[in-house]
Amino acid sequence: MAHIDLNSDLGESFGPWRMGDDAAMLDIVTSANIACGFHAGDPAGILATLRAAAARGVSIGAHVGYRDLVGFGRRNMNPSSAELVGDTIYQIGALQALAHVAGTKVRYVKPHGALYNTIAHDARQGADVIEAIRAVDPGLVVLALAGAPFVEQARSAGLAVVCEAFADRAYNADGSLVDRRLPGAVVHDPAEVAARMLKLVTDGTIVAVDGSEIALDAQSICIHGDTPASVEIARVLRAKLASQGVSLVPFATSHG
Amino acid sequence: MAHIDLNSDLGESFGPWRMGDDAAMLDIVTSANIACGFHAGDPAGILATLRAAAARGVSIGAHVGYRDLVGFGRRNMNPSSAELVGDTIYQIGALQALAHVAGTKVRYVKPHGALYNTIAHDARQGADVIEAIRAVDPGLVVLALAGAPFVEQARSAGLAVVCEAFADRAYNADGSLVDRRLPGAVVHDPAEVAARMLKLVTDGTIVAVDGSEIALDAQSICIHGDTPASVEIARVLRAKLASQGVSLVPFATSHG
Amino acid sequence: MAHIDLNSDLGESFGPWRMGDDAAMLDIVTSANIACGFHAGDPAGILATLRAAAARGVSIGAHVGYRDLVGFGRRNMNPSSAELVGDTIYQIGALQALAHVAGTKVRYVKPHGALYNTIAHDARQGADVIEAIRAVDPGLVVLALAGAPFVEQARSAGLAVVCEAFADRAYNADGSLVDRRLPGAVVHDPAEVAARMLKLVTDGTIVAVDGSEIALDAQSICIHGDTPASVEIARVLRAKLASQGVSLVPFATSHG
Amino acid sequence: MAHIDLNSDLGESFGPWRMGDDAAMLDIVTSANIACGFHAGDPAGILATLRAAAARGVSIGAHVGYRDLVGFGRRNMNPSSAELVGDTIYQIGALQALAHVAGTKVRYVKPHGALYNTIAHDARQGADVIEAIRAVDPGLVVLALAGAPFVEQARSAGLAVVCEAFADRAYNADGSLVDRRLPGAVVHDPAEVAARMLKLVTDGTIVAVDGSEIALDAQSICIHGDTPASVEIARVLRAKLASQGVSLVPFATSHG
Repeated sequence: MAHIDLNSDLGESFGPWRMGDDAAMLDIVTSANIACGFHAGDPAGILATLRAAAARGVSIGAHVGYRDLVGFGRRNMNPSSAELVGDTIYQIGALQALAHVAGTKVRYVKPHGALYNTIAHDARQGADVIEAIRAVDPGLVVLALAGAPFVEQARSAGLAVVCEAFADRAYNADGSLVDRRLPGAVVHDPAEVAARMLKLVTDGTIVAVDGSEIALDAQSICIHGDTPASVEIARVLRAKLASQGVSLVPFATSHG
Repeated sequence: MAHIDLNSDLGESFGPWRMGDDAAMLDIVTSANIACGFHAGDPAGILATLRAAAARGVSIGAHVGYRDLVGFGRRNMNPSSAELVGDTIYQIGALQALAHVAGTKVRYVKPHGALYNTIAHDARQGADVIEAIRAVDPGLVVLALAGAPFVEQARSAGLAVVCEAFADRAYNADGSLVDRRLPGAVVHDPAEVAARMLKLVTDGTIVAVDGSEIALDAQSICIHGDTPASVEIARVLRAKLASQGVSLVPFATSHG
Repeated sequence: MAHIDLNSDLGESFGPWRMGDDAAMLDIVTSANIACGFHAGDPAGILATLRAAAARGVSIGAHVGYRDLVGFGRRNMNPSSAELVGDTIYQIGALQALAHVAGTKVRYVKPHGALYNTIAHDARQGADVIEAIRAVDPGLVVLALAGAPFVEQARSAGLAVVCEAFADRAYNADGSLVDRRLPGAVVHDPAEVAARMLKLVTDGTIVAVDGSEIALDAQSICIHGDTPASVEIARVLRAKLASQGVSLVPFATSHG
Repeated sequence: MAHIDLNSDLGESFGPWRMGDDAAMLDIVTSANIACGFHAGDPAGILATLRAAAARGVSIGAHVGYRDLVGFGRRNMNPSSAELVGDTIYQIGALQALAHVAGTKVRYVKPHGALYNTIAHDARQGADVIEAIRAVDPGLVVLALAGAPFVEQARSAGLAVVCEAFADRAYNADGSLVDRRLPGAVVHDPAEVAARMLKLVTDGTIVAVDGSEIALDAQSICIHGDTPASVEIARVLRAKLASQGVSLVPFATSHG
């Protein structure tokens, strides 16, 4: 029987500012990428989200990012290797302790935003993140962009890597994401998103913007959760997959 | 044979700004209270200090503080319980991961600055810190102010508590520290500091500002390390204790 | 003809995080207390709100706060006088430049959150804020809590002070606000809020929680704008006042 | 008679962390680039440095930088135009108010660190900085890298630009600075620094690393002040220039 993981970025509120509906998304996803305080998230809020995730058996990942709160980790930066290694270890460790207190544990790491996009192709920063993860716990899985050079880099370094597809994003014929600034880059119709992802899970393919059918090796689907519309998309997607007999299971469960 | 621990606050540089001479102090102390990023310390700098400490076999404590970088954690604050519990867990966890990578581990927790002074007598904030430590690891020792109500509070909650004396501070007859704003509050002469601490270690007593001799139950001596003068004081103190046959041993070594 | 000012806290978004509906509230209020970056607000967002305010002729105040972003300036702190004076000048100056670029200017200062509540009765911190405002521009008006000792303190120092009432808060018989933690502290019914404030404007009195009628010397009404419900309350209040012939005019317009 | 300006980066302490010897450097320089809180500097410390500068008649510039405290504004970033414009206005305004309180005023703007290097050639970020300066006060002078495309860009936009040379840096034959990572990039001998700068002031030329003599159009000399050695270099440089009849005068004095 086919199976897939659904992941989403959560724990991204900060102090008095809310972002997304963590409780609603935790009822839908199987893996939660939890902010670690550098691009978003404060300890009390992160802990509350971890407890809600633990209560539902959702798998936990450290969503590590650049130290840029006002920019939400979405701005390119060039930290030194010592800085990036240290910052990554620090964030994972902080989340590990909070997860332990919440009765769960960190099973994987997913870099966030500009860091995610940069390491996809920047081997130096990629090596820094890999070094940090391996130093903390070589059993941690990495969740990464399907098709990026980083996937091989991390695997060569001995890390287990799981690749993800983006539920609401259009793909180019070469497997890359269509630039957000181009028309059609984001798929807004819940039914279309669900149909595309069902095809990906069952056939391993997705239809690119030029109409061609391309193979995409993804063991997890990333769904955004920061707007009411995206929660609705997530619900429709989950229901569609379930109705077609696809099991929803976290990719990382056995570790530790 | 008499023995004692020497502790100091380290890892307090931040980005381009240096504070203290960590390498020099790590050659002298047996326990290092390492900043965790909230009042001071950045991950890369903390990691470097942890590696230097590990290389010398110095015992590591989490120096947790209020989230107030510009105020260096020295300003009173009233975080909610959820905030203080979360912030404390977060800081300990971040340091645990960095310590693990440095080949050592966090053995104790010493609250810093305004938090240290507040919980000495504020039972609500004290309870929050205790809850956080117990939730992360009930085997962590707490390093606290000799004579403070917090000592009993933490012990009643099941935590091991070690009390400390301050090498360069004058004491009142009731065992409290002389207010820093009063003349004579700080002892500047290295030989006098050394003589006072030798007496404390061998007799368990210290001479108060009124000339009376008071008992002080301290298993560790805190020495400051942020000025060249204080490094010299630390060296003289260590040499004096060693010359009188006092062994210098960390109070927390067997844990974990 | 009776007249009154309506003020609200705006510009409180931060980076990716939204707070309140600034555009909606700017259509209702006559004075906008704009966050200055220490408790909330980032420069780009503040500038956008200032431009929207300038377009509507809304009067601008500097909503200065403690440097505590995660705590939203709502946690008590004890900055030194040098720190509080410097922080206050810095925030006002930053807002002055942004206001100038937006084609408007800062006409008054309203301390925020814990700073507002602290200086109401803490003469030392109150004096620091007064010193900062006078040093930047003694023509700046201060918006303060009706009945607080700070009102006299600021007036004695030569500052013009305008007092405010809170639209949705219940009052004790002595003119103080009912503690938020007590039942009935917040008035939720828009019609009731409007009726209470109309009475305040026309009679200068408000009905306290014990049923007594008390005098309240307020030249401005503070209305919260951070929830859809509060925007609705503000709309009903404005409509009610207008329908009864009360003019809505900013208290600070002629300065500079 | 020949004349020149000497400038240095000051006000870069933060909270408990000291950087440089502002008082010593203010006795030497004619223009002070004062940190504005984003890469360094806290309001109380900035104000103290401004007062010391005002007492000595030293001209004040806003040393605006990226919002990256731990990285000291030395890491490349890609803020949006709205962010960079807003951040620049905010920093200048904050410094203007502090300068006013100190009895002086901001006469020029010098971007710091990575921002300085980026806008030297990045026209988009350069345009953002220019837009911000012009919006705050088109009479503000810009202090920039001699030979950079940004100089023309700012002049075309109507801003007055003054170019600077670096006292202790070696130059390539094309007028660019020798990369810091190469041997010989920094000149350490005070006498050599002084001789090179005297030649620059009197002849308008400097000897490049390949031995060739190149023209450099600089009306100000930047001297670093963050180490005891650099203060000594600054003293020797100033004495040498004075002994040869070169007047030291700030480039920006008449504005406003």
